[in-house]
Amino acid sequence: MDWKARLLVLDGLTPSMDEGGMLAWGTLADAPEDAELVFLGLDRSDGGEKACFACVPPEGDARPRMANPQLWSLMTALAPDQLALYGGARSLVDWHARHRFCAQCGGATRIAKGGWQRSCTQCGADHFPRTDPVTIMLVEHVRDGERKLLLGRGLGWPEGRFSALAGFVEPGETIEEGVAREVLEEVGIVVRDVRYILSQPWPFPSQLMIGCIGYTDQTEITLDETEMAEAHWYTRDDVIASLEGRDDAPMVSPPPHTIAHQLFRWWIAQ
Amino acid sequence: MDWKARLLVLDGLTPSMDEGGMLAWGTLADAPEDAELVFLGLDRSDGGEKACFACVPPEGDARPRMANPQLWSLMTALAPDQLALYGGARSLVDWHARHRFCAQCGGATRIAKGGWQRSCTQCGADHFPRTDPVTIMLVEHVRDGERKLLLGRGLGWPEGRFSALAGFVEPGETIEEGVAREVLEEVGIVVRDVRYILSQPWPFPSQLMIGCIGYTDQTEITLDETEMAEAHWYTRDDVIASLEGRDDAPMVSPPPHTIAHQLFRWWIAQ
Repeated sequence: MDWKARLLVLDGLTPSMDEGGMLAWGTLADAPEDAELVFLGLDRSDGGEKACFACVPPEGDARPRMANPQLWSLMTALAPDQLALYGGARSLVDWHARHRFCAQCGGATRIAKGGWQRSCTQCGADHFPRTDPVTIMLVEHVRDGERKLLLGRGLGWPEGRFSALAGFVEPGETIEEGVAREVLEEVGIVVRDVRYILSQPWPFPSQLMIGCIGYTDQTEITLDETEMAEAHWYTRDDVIASLEGRDDAPMVSPPPHTIAHQLFRWWIAQ
Repeated sequence: MDWKARLLVLDGLTPSMDEGGMLAWGTLADAPEDAELVFLGLDRSDGGEKACFACVPPEGDARPRMANPQLWSLMTALAPDQLALYGGARSLVDWHARHRFCAQCGGATRIAKGGWQRSCTQCGADHFPRTDPVTIMLVEHVRDGERKLLLGRGLGWPEGRFSALAGFVEPGETIEEGVAREVLEEVGIVVRDVRYILSQPWPFPSQLMIGCIGYTDQTEITLDETEMAEAHWYTRDDVIASLEGRDDAPMVSPPPHTIAHQLFRWWIAQ
């Protein structure tokens, strides 16, 4: 055997970075003796072959952990491949920490298949890491040749920060039906010709973000006030000003590592 | 109050049909007194307004229930809107039946928010119905102007039955990365220019099928024998013969209500 193993350095779910802006790694000896280890894959990037692991945090929290400001700035600093690796690892270890019991019978579960499964020690049911599909959508309206984009501010978001509408895909619907339902529910607007653009994993806790665009002839907004604080139409110039972070921008866009930011860039390039 | 309620007739997870080929409905009085009821939505199709419910089966099974031949023929007979309604209801009640306990602490959960949530009676954690994104992909190769499609037969499938490759999207990857990984794993082929085509919910138990196409210059297949029995290249004529159910077809295609069938139709129309 000529391989080495390494352990992703995590404080709970928060990563560490080395001086080069890369994720920090330790050795398997750094893991507590009874720790559950998740196999992340083989890294062949520097010639050798290293098995990469992450450690399941000792205790779970009832609520899925969201991104915090410290993590947000870490994410901005990480290269895309490092961010993807961290995101996958975070989703997995967080899922393990919150699934120590069997939803079927209430018995204790234990890690299996290198961390890509948990099995019930009582009834034998197998449980698999969860990924939730979420649609996030640009809603476009064209009048007199001018394209406008509908953006919203969720309840509790900072004043001035706007993004694309989004919501979980529900059982029994297609991606396109999910987009149409979500837009109708949140802003009372009927969209047509829904089209897929791009996707992105989002590890808070484990979403697959599915970016789409839909078109509408309506401009009047009927807000769902249990979800949204406000929603408005923005011109291409508005979106450009916001992406450039200009003082005269009418709103603040999501940061570059978000799919919403990528969708905005896609839209202004059309 | 001027509304009526109706209850989807289910034997476990199997629906009943009336003479018109529609899903059969009963009244709320048909539900056991202690039954958990899932609210499916309002039906306004015949002028009035009816609240539609389904009943969670009294006991769950550790394994997610797959489609059986009886259900398969029912599905073929149901109109698309009826199939969608049944699919959503089935996913939901099956999820409830298999999630009576809290994965976080092992305590008992109870149904909440009309069946779109379960809450732990012990630690208070909320749990939501699960939908698993699955990619299903056409792999195309063109030589001397002839387009060919790679189709596979899974382990345990009947002799002669072929379909598109498919697999769960894993934490940390995009739809396009999921497609590329799955094709590389199952048949050892590198695909490029992966593109989304269409999606479909699949309630066995609760997948969101995401249909894509990818292109390759490779023809040599390296089979993952732990998943696949065989895989071959088929011409447009082969696929047409199979969709028409002709005796000279080199393989049997999936039935019309599957996304694979729809993908085949899309491909021959290109």
